Amino acid sequence: MGLTTRSLEVLGAFDPDHPVLTLAEVSRRTGVPLTTTHRIVTELLAWGALERRPDGALQIGLRLWQVASVAPRGPSLREVALPFLEDLYVATRENVQLAVRDGHEAVFLERLAGRGSVRVLTRVGDHFALHATGVGLVLLAFAPREVQEEVLAEPLRAWTAYTITDPAVLRRTLAEIRRTGVAISDRQVTEDAVSVASPVRGPDGDVVAALSVVVRHGGVAPASLVPAVLAGATGISRALGAPRPRPLSGARRDPDRPSAHRNGP
Amino acid sequence: MGLTTRSLEVLGAFDPDHPVLTLAEVSRRTGVPLTTTHRIVTELLAWGALERRPDGALQIGLRLWQVASVAPRGPSLREVALPFLEDLYVATRENVQLAVRDGHEAVFLERLAGRGSVRVLTRVGDHFALHATGVGLVLLAFAPREVQEEVLAEPLRAWTAYTITDPAVLRRTLAEIRRTGVAISDRQVTEDAVSVASPVRGPDGDVVAALSVVVRHGGVAPASLVPAVLAGATGISRALGAPRPRPLSGARRDPDRPSAHRNGP
Repeated sequence: MGLTTRSLEVLGAFDPDHPVLTLAEVSRRTGVPLTTTHRIVTELLAWGALERRPDGALQIGLRLWQVASVAPRGPSLREVALPFLEDLYVATRENVQLAVRDGHEAVFLERLAGRGSVRVLTRVGDHFALHATGVGLVLLAFAPREVQEEVLAEPLRAWTAYTITDPAVLRRTLAEIRRTGVAISDRQVTEDAVSVASPVRGPDGDVVAALSVVVRHGGVAPASLVPAVLAGATGISRALGAPRPRPLSGARRDPDRPSAHRNGP
Repeated sequence: MGLTTRSLEVLGAFDPDHPVLTLAEVSRRTGVPLTTTHRIVTELLAWGALERRPDGALQIGLRLWQVASVAPRGPSLREVALPFLEDLYVATRENVQLAVRDGHEAVFLERLAGRGSVRVLTRVGDHFALHATGVGLVLLAFAPREVQEEVLAEPLRAWTAYTITDPAVLRRTLAEIRRTGVAISDRQVTEDAVSVASPVRGPDGDVVAALSVVVRHGGVAPASLVPAVLAGATGISRALGAPRPRPLSGARRDPDRPSAHRNGP
């Protein structure tokens, strides 16, 4: 293993459940010998990728976060989407989530959640299976054919009695999502949450992310959220430079709206 | 220079103005020889710290952002603060900012901004001088003595005619901020923006961040924003486990409020 990779493994030892580690813990978690870990950590500290706490323990440094904050598929996409997420949050006061696909999983770029919002299992930066959440189902439905087949071939974990675990049912669900442009995950992750999600498209028209609103089951009807989620996803797509969606039959379009959206900060 | 540091320099070549680079550009910007750059980049790509675009150019990868997202002084602090930032945004519909100090500069952890908000120069992840912005003045006012003296000894850059460039005036301003717990930066960064900022304290009572609302000059009176900004900063401090602020003389305190705040997600 190259030293660059070992340095990355040292950084990778820190995760949401282990945000603070001692040198020995880093060595243990990475399998990198203590002396090598010490040499690497010394350089990581000097550069600011790691910071030492008053108690001597190590944590991820601000400088690494600054470098990472220019990741186009992460913060940059989030930056463009944020005004639309805020509009959705102000309109619903519910969890508003933005996610992208990373291999066979969804990664959450952002979540706006009020103190009154229903509890969700996901955190910003977390991975989550594609077949359960609303955003995951959208990302899977529009993923390359081979990715879909690989996921359909894997065992489909159940979080609740409502999680789709039958590949045939999942296949039909994905086709329906491609047809409607909307995914509704009803209590498939937690017993009390329903997610309504829609695809976000990039400049070449490909689906680059998914937007969702998660509400409490038995509260507001999910169907009533579909127009808001669709509008938000379309707005983000337009701000990303996506080609115009085909107008629905009979729908009238205000020629000013797209540019008005593009004028976002 | 160690290979770990060189690997970090390669990552550091990417910034908000250069989010996408070719291998040659990375080598040029870092001064790391092309062959070494190629070896490092190959490992960074394999691990996911970098991603290759369809056109072959390089960009920061999602995995680096995920690792960085556990930085306690960055995303984790932001996560605790977000509900309070949202409350302030909903109440004001103006720029709401959260920043921490990094040496002699402020780093912006978060900015919520509506499409109608006044334009600001700062971006999430950006550095900015401490003596001009509201959050910067707060962070400087509560920084260690030696940091204050170092900044006061440096030339103080002017962004507008209102930027404080006289060390004596800045010294008095910082003392006033420590006395009131509020900083108001009136057109000191841009001609049309006014920032109202207040300190956020950590578990040991030290100032760990600053919260601000930035409004258009000539619009809502800055003084009218002070209670909301103070309340938001106090709420975040409490959620971080800061000791209770001394109640203002005559102020009545509802014993439920702190715990209600701590119950935030």
